[in-house]
Amino acid sequence: MMSFTAAQLRDFLGGGEILGDPKRKVARVAPPQNAGDEELTFIFAKKWLNRLHEVNASVVVLPRLKSMEPPKSHTYLLVHNVGEAMIRLLSLFFHPPFSREMGISPLAYVSNKAILGEGATIYPFAFVDDEVAVGEKAIIMPHVFVGRGAQIGYGSVIMPSAVIYPGTEIGDNVVIHAGAVLGADGFGYVENEGRRIKIPQVGGLKIARDVEIGANTCIDRATMGCTSIDEGTKVDNLVQIGHNVKIGKHCAFAGQVGISGSVEVGDRVLMGGQAGIADHIRIGNDAIVTAKAGIMSDVEKAKVMTGAPALPHGTWRRAQALLIKLPNLARKLARLEKQLEELKGGEDRDQKDS
Amino acid sequence: MMSFTAAQLRDFLGGGEILGDPKRKVARVAPPQNAGDEELTFIFAKKWLNRLHEVNASVVVLPRLKSMEPPKSHTYLLVHNVGEAMIRLLSLFFHPPFSREMGISPLAYVSNKAILGEGATIYPFAFVDDEVAVGEKAIIMPHVFVGRGAQIGYGSVIMPSAVIYPGTEIGDNVVIHAGAVLGADGFGYVENEGRRIKIPQVGGLKIARDVEIGANTCIDRATMGCTSIDEGTKVDNLVQIGHNVKIGKHCAFAGQVGISGSVEVGDRVLMGGQAGIADHIRIGNDAIVTAKAGIMSDVEKAKVMTGAPALPHGTWRRAQALLIKLPNLARKLARLEKQLEELKGGEDRDQKDS
Amino acid sequence: MMSFTAAQLRDFLGGGEILGDPKRKVARVAPPQNAGDEELTFIFAKKWLNRLHEVNASVVVLPRLKSMEPPKSHTYLLVHNVGEAMIRLLSLFFHPPFSREMGISPLAYVSNKAILGEGATIYPFAFVDDEVAVGEKAIIMPHVFVGRGAQIGYGSVIMPSAVIYPGTEIGDNVVIHAGAVLGADGFGYVENEGRRIKIPQVGGLKIARDVEIGANTCIDRATMGCTSIDEGTKVDNLVQIGHNVKIGKHCAFAGQVGISGSVEVGDRVLMGGQAGIADHIRIGNDAIVTAKAGIMSDVEKAKVMTGAPALPHGTWRRAQALLIKLPNLARKLARLEKQLEELKGGEDRDQKDS
Repeated sequence: MMSFTAAQLRDFLGGGEILGDPKRKVARVAPPQNAGDEELTFIFAKKWLNRLHEVNASVVVLPRLKSMEPPKSHTYLLVHNVGEAMIRLLSLFFHPPFSREMGISPLAYVSNKAILGEGATIYPFAFVDDEVAVGEKAIIMPHVFVGRGAQIGYGSVIMPSAVIYPGTEIGDNVVIHAGAVLGADGFGYVENEGRRIKIPQVGGLKIARDVEIGANTCIDRATMGCTSIDEGTKVDNLVQIGHNVKIGKHCAFAGQVGISGSVEVGDRVLMGGQAGIADHIRIGNDAIVTAKAGIMSDVEKAKVMTGAPALPHGTWRRAQALLIKLPNLARKLARLEKQLEELKGGEDRDQKDS
Repeated sequence: MMSFTAAQLRDFLGGGEILGDPKRKVARVAPPQNAGDEELTFIFAKKWLNRLHEVNASVVVLPRLKSMEPPKSHTYLLVHNVGEAMIRLLSLFFHPPFSREMGISPLAYVSNKAILGEGATIYPFAFVDDEVAVGEKAIIMPHVFVGRGAQIGYGSVIMPSAVIYPGTEIGDNVVIHAGAVLGADGFGYVENEGRRIKIPQVGGLKIARDVEIGANTCIDRATMGCTSIDEGTKVDNLVQIGHNVKIGKHCAFAGQVGISGSVEVGDRVLMGGQAGIADHIRIGNDAIVTAKAGIMSDVEKAKVMTGAPALPHGTWRRAQALLIKLPNLARKLARLEKQLEELKGGEDRDQKDS
Repeated sequence: MMSFTAAQLRDFLGGGEILGDPKRKVARVAPPQNAGDEELTFIFAKKWLNRLHEVNASVVVLPRLKSMEPPKSHTYLLVHNVGEAMIRLLSLFFHPPFSREMGISPLAYVSNKAILGEGATIYPFAFVDDEVAVGEKAIIMPHVFVGRGAQIGYGSVIMPSAVIYPGTEIGDNVVIHAGAVLGADGFGYVENEGRRIKIPQVGGLKIARDVEIGANTCIDRATMGCTSIDEGTKVDNLVQIGHNVKIGKHCAFAGQVGISGSVEVGDRVLMGGQAGIADHIRIGNDAIVTAKAGIMSDVEKAKVMTGAPALPHGTWRRAQALLIKLPNLARKLARLEKQLEELKGGEDRDQKDS
């Protein structure tokens, strides 16, 4: 187990200020509520900044506060941007799930018509078919299937049991998590007298650089042309993306999102868990689709959509707030009805009287 | 790369009329908006029939129109049924993900108590257990597990990493996509003093001919008896089908549908993405369950159900339209209340005055 | 095929009373509606207790009823607790999907730095990395990946194609179904000028004893610290559980449930299919989240929550009942408005007249 002093962490960051003992050591990281002896933690949330005395980590990375007492039991490492510092410091404690020393395992099946870049790693029981191109330093883990003619970019990692159908193109520095299925047939049939005749799915799938695809997520190949995911987009686990979908750059889709065929999504679009998009919908740049929303018509750029069927978030919230009050509204309406009846009765009497 | 002339395509179809150069060549297919030189495209949608001049494919397959100018830059292939022609012509450009030349790989594990039909293909790293029967011309791809006593029908294809639990029966010409899990235990427990005791799942799973099952979809075995999917039914990716479910013929279920235990679904039923069906529900022939619907009571034949909890589509639409107008209704009600107060005040005054 | 007499079944249970022929034989089990000759069935539901004459099983296990005619064609085995008797008797007919005779297959990859307990079984094509500890009598099936330093407890079963990321700790008597992915990276990024920078996920995942995880379910490792599932909890297929989630004891989550990051769930919590929980939510002991519910705020112990966004079940039901009546309410409101107009008109006339 490696360990680092607070001073070493500061030097690794190339900046930051230490309050307390710069020789304090950490061997592990932990969240603020659990961190203890020899542990490093990071504090962003106001909640924890107000309860610093409850944090028992040996070293605490946090922003410089206006008024700040010197720490008693722990050491503070004050930084400008805690998020950035966290990402860099966590990398010291991170062990990747693969070993580059594996090389090209003789227990893998690699077609002699496949091309392997320098420093590529192929684990036992991986299957690499004819005319596959594996980029330099790419990692293909156990039980991965890479179909004929598929391409894996520089430094990309394909985790165990992922399935890359033939012809799929994966860019550089992509991570495909375990069990993801890329390039399976789209769900396309022509109906004929109550039966479904399959439309051969002759298109492909392109995944650009710096994309990450979650575990057991499925992205279908196109009927014709290409399904595509543009650079930097991050997709969580168990997401379904249909055939001929186009996804822009730097989007993030949470778990169990479902995107139907031929949808076009712009750049930097966010989708919450279990959201669903109907087929052929277009979603503009910077739009947000909240969790469980059901999108049934096009979404303009930067709009926030909620509910199923989805409404602009404000409209939805107002309608939703009143939904709970419906029993109230109904009671009020019944009372009004009765009062009006009485009034009319009175007026009728008045009119008869007159 | 093979290529075909417009005349060859017509001859392959056994019919159709060519407008333009019958020697025009195509080497690939593409959707109308992307198709270019040496590419074949298909036009169904009115949108594109009205914008034929924007299509840059070399050869365009389309229906005969009432008034039709001869094409300038491309060649038309006029057919009676574009859908049917497309399915047949796409097959010329389709490369299946498997190779029948693989034979029975010595890198597979095949029990000597398994029976393999003539022309069956078993890829490296497939696992075929005792008493499995693999039909003629069936294809078992890499990393597939076929458990003891399972049956795979004639010409069926089991894509990489699919898992076929013991005893599962799969009919002829079935396609099981990558990562699908067929015949895992149903979710059945008996509660006993706050703990769950597992009910041994001794039933099976039968999948009839011409069924297609999507990637990472799960279909559980029955507790007793059989879970069953009848012929011609198509199931998309990431669908969950619980134990003891019975599905009829020629149904189509979109991605992420969830069907709870003991549900019975008729023939030709359609379900949209992320729809969910509560346990023990019966759904009649030709019913439609729209995307994200939550079905909590039986559905009669040919009904269209929407929403969660689901209502008949028309009822749901009317309620939904008013939901957005709730703030309006609430304001109107408040105004009426006030007016009525004033009226009553007036009457009270009148009555006092009188 | 083994078969058992009614008397043997009673003796195996160590109790129960036989009405009819104690020598009656059964070779299989079936549900009441399908059971026939040589088949054993179990009756719980009132529906079937009232229709005993329709059941054609050879032997029927049921509770002692107040008035009970001796059976004609079948044999009754009367027991105190049918659920308990069923679980024990089904075990006689259950064939596990694995064979302990497989031993440590020479076709598996097992690191020489892994430790295998006595009686552990490793199937062909399993991959067991350095420093893995496999407990006594544990079963690792084909195409399973067990990453560096992971632990598998006594008697636990890892079904085909499941992926256990490095360092994951799995307790005793756990069942992980096919294709499940345990310990993949959480979905954690820091946004920086419209791009997402990945937070290294250095935490772990702990699964306690007697847990069962469904097919293709994904449970992410923690960013720091541990994601954890406590003893006896049962998780169905295609469920997503995010990073840093803590789940209590003896919970049951149905198919396609989604639990976002840092959620804390108490003991004995039930969740229906496709329910979703927003991040950082706390759910108290014995709470029930119904199917398709969307939980966006903390849930107190023993509450039943329904709808998306979820409300207490009673509140939700009242609002939902009125939702269908909205067109009615709107019509009523319009009529009142008109009547009030008329009344005011009358009053105005009155006032002008006076």
